[in-house]
Amino acid sequence: MTSTLITGISELVTNDAEQDNGLLGIVEDAAIVVSDNAIEWIGLQSEAPAADLHRDVGGRAVLPGFVDSHTHLVFAGDRSAEFSARMTGEPYDGGGIAVSMAATRGASDDELRSLVRRRVQEMRGQGTTSWEIKSGYGLDVDTEARSLRIAREFTSETTFLGAHVVPPEARKDRAAYVELVTGPMLEACAPHAKWIDVFCEPHSQYAFTEAESRTVLDAGKARALEVRVHGNQLGHGPGVQLAVELGAASVDHCTFLTDGDVDALAASDTVATLLPGVEFSTRMPYPRARDLIDAGATVALASDCNPGTCYSSSIPFVIALAVRELRMTPAEAVWAATAGAATSLRRNDIGVLTPGARADLAVLNAPSHLHLAYRPGVPIAAAVDLCAGEELDELHLE
Amino acid sequence: MTSTLITGISELVTNDAEQDNGLLGIVEDAAIVVSDNAIEWIGLQSEAPAADLHRDVGGRAVLPGFVDSHTHLVFAGDRSAEFSARMTGEPYDGGGIAVSMAATRGASDDELRSLVRRRVQEMRGQGTTSWEIKSGYGLDVDTEARSLRIAREFTSETTFLGAHVVPPEARKDRAAYVELVTGPMLEACAPHAKWIDVFCEPHSQYAFTEAESRTVLDAGKARALEVRVHGNQLGHGPGVQLAVELGAASVDHCTFLTDGDVDALAASDTVATLLPGVEFSTRMPYPRARDLIDAGATVALASDCNPGTCYSSSIPFVIALAVRELRMTPAEAVWAATAGAATSLRRNDIGVLTPGARADLAVLNAPSHLHLAYRPGVPIAAAVDLCAGEELDELHLE
Ligand SMILES: [Zn+2]
Ligand SMILES: [Zn+2]
Repeated sequence: MTSTLITGISELVTNDAEQDNGLLGIVEDAAIVVSDNAIEWIGLQSEAPAADLHRDVGGRAVLPGFVDSHTHLVFAGDRSAEFSARMTGEPYDGGGIAVSMAATRGASDDELRSLVRRRVQEMRGQGTTSWEIKSGYGLDVDTEARSLRIAREFTSETTFLGAHVVPPEARKDRAAYVELVTGPMLEACAPHAKWIDVFCEPHSQYAFTEAESRTVLDAGKARALEVRVHGNQLGHGPGVQLAVELGAASVDHCTFLTDGDVDALAASDTVATLLPGVEFSTRMPYPRARDLIDAGATVALASDCNPGTCYSSSIPFVIALAVRELRMTPAEAVWAATAGAATSLRRNDIGVLTPGARADLAVLNAPSHLHLAYRPGVPIAAAVDLCAGEELDELHLE
Repeated sequence: MTSTLITGISELVTNDAEQDNGLLGIVEDAAIVVSDNAIEWIGLQSEAPAADLHRDVGGRAVLPGFVDSHTHLVFAGDRSAEFSARMTGEPYDGGGIAVSMAATRGASDDELRSLVRRRVQEMRGQGTTSWEIKSGYGLDVDTEARSLRIAREFTSETTFLGAHVVPPEARKDRAAYVELVTGPMLEACAPHAKWIDVFCEPHSQYAFTEAESRTVLDAGKARALEVRVHGNQLGHGPGVQLAVELGAASVDHCTFLTDGDVDALAASDTVATLLPGVEFSTRMPYPRARDLIDAGATVALASDCNPGTCYSSSIPFVIALAVRELRMTPAEAVWAATAGAATSLRRNDIGVLTPGARADLAVLNAPSHLHLAYRPGVPIAAAVDLCAGEELDELHLE
């Protein structure tokens, strides 16, 4: 097994409580040794052991690669005109999610695969090394199953979201659609999915009620899928409480929370996954991150990369929003986008840099994690496979 | 002279009123011919003439390269901890601008040159092809002159900003500092500058009053420098009216405007340059862009890239903020960051793509300009010198 020593790390974010240096377990002037894609050793550069190969990152910060625990990467079609109309207050009847659904149904496997590949590359280029991918733009048995098969080619964190919305052709008989989702669609999708998810939202007529959501999630659990929930996005509602009751790993959005919701999350193992790119791109109010953190809830940050409400795949942008708008500290935001998001996927081998964890590294073209929020919009983060010889760019650090 | 035909342009933004297709003068399915770094021909791809070389951009949008008309690229030092403290409400007495000043004074020419080069490369990587650069972190004769000499290596749009703030050593005798700025410092700096600028701001004790600002700007005009003003950033004040009165090309920030300020700008040739990255990074309210545009004022957008109040060099991010927070349409925002910013520099050879204009091109990894706001934080824009054979990346478009 070839080992690689990585030096020149101005600041290493480990998220390791044993480092005893703040929430991020920061080691300055650090080095790491990587072997077989796992972390073998972490410490001060001055104490680094020998290794077969050596790479120097030139005074840059190194973080656990971002974990994007909420994405909808499998879709075709373009909805930029709908976005523009929404932001400028112009009327637009372009069909919303039905546009993505029709384009996705009409796309071949190879077309979908190439779209997902492009989006995954784009995410890696911004420092993300793990991604969850949901279905939910097929909304028929064949396209949902195809979406998950293709998603599975890119990640083990696949989520069946047949209950994204009730598709147009099923709106006269919602009960029949829930039966389809929990019957033949689940049957076809479960082999390709780790998770089941539902858009539980009384404020949208095409999303799912509490009772419908419970039916969908119970059916998924019966097929050994683990539970996550889209909840409380458009207004107060039952999503958070249902997620906690069912032992969901995560409830995502949490845009509208009562004090009772905050308390329930704090008392549970369910992670509150915040998606502030959605509030940015829909001009909605931002979620109560401070209240969640101060109450002791576990908070994750993710992109929700999707064509309708947030077509951003940028975790650095999400971190900048979390600091500016959610009043999270830079350290809280970085933790939430790495260790927090990993927790929401029930993973402890990613989102941290500790001996034995995966050697998924984000390298910043900057000396500290603070620059992620300090330099909004600037592409300073990238996932770099140093062991494979991937090149850092040639720019000098200050 | 070698000519290059560029095809495969899904959407070409010309900012040419004669194209008669909206504010941006959009041509779809377009081609252009470039010769000697200037636009020679523009039209439909189906009508394109022959040329010596041929490049195809594969269905991407092409825009005039962004014109960043307000930057402070010449500085050394790191102030990310000050940013973090400000955003989290923690006390911090790190010295603010004096930190940048001390580091800049202490940096060698080569160090400053390499920092500016890195920042300019970073801007090109985000689609910016022209940049104004100010002095203002030296605040002594030698360092201000050095800053401008180095800035001039990277742009003709250099701005003498000795009147950025009164430096610590001069605070007991402000009048003496104004005499230094308008005397020996101006003498040393004017040969390297096109513009003179002043931070006219009664709400900051170390910025300059209306009377001091007038003295500085008059002295610059007497040395044939053209006038731009930092005004109305921290509260209502005299900056806008002074800029209009003196015939300034631009007044920048405009965060706090009275109705009278809006009317004065609308009735003048002075461009209102908005810098929403500053409001993002300082958590201030956003300027009244809609009122300015609706009144008929010319609006530009720029980054204000600087270490204290906005260390972002990303014009795509500024455009996304302009749409989300300033309620500009995507077309208004793109125009303001190209033609509007060029107007604020009194240039008509950049910010537009018309025959005879410079062939400064921003290529989007997307089919339309709408994606700049639709995909916040995602690095989809780059300045590409197609005639020099610079490569587009290999990602496929949707
Ligand atoms: Zn979602
Ligand atoms: Zn400025």
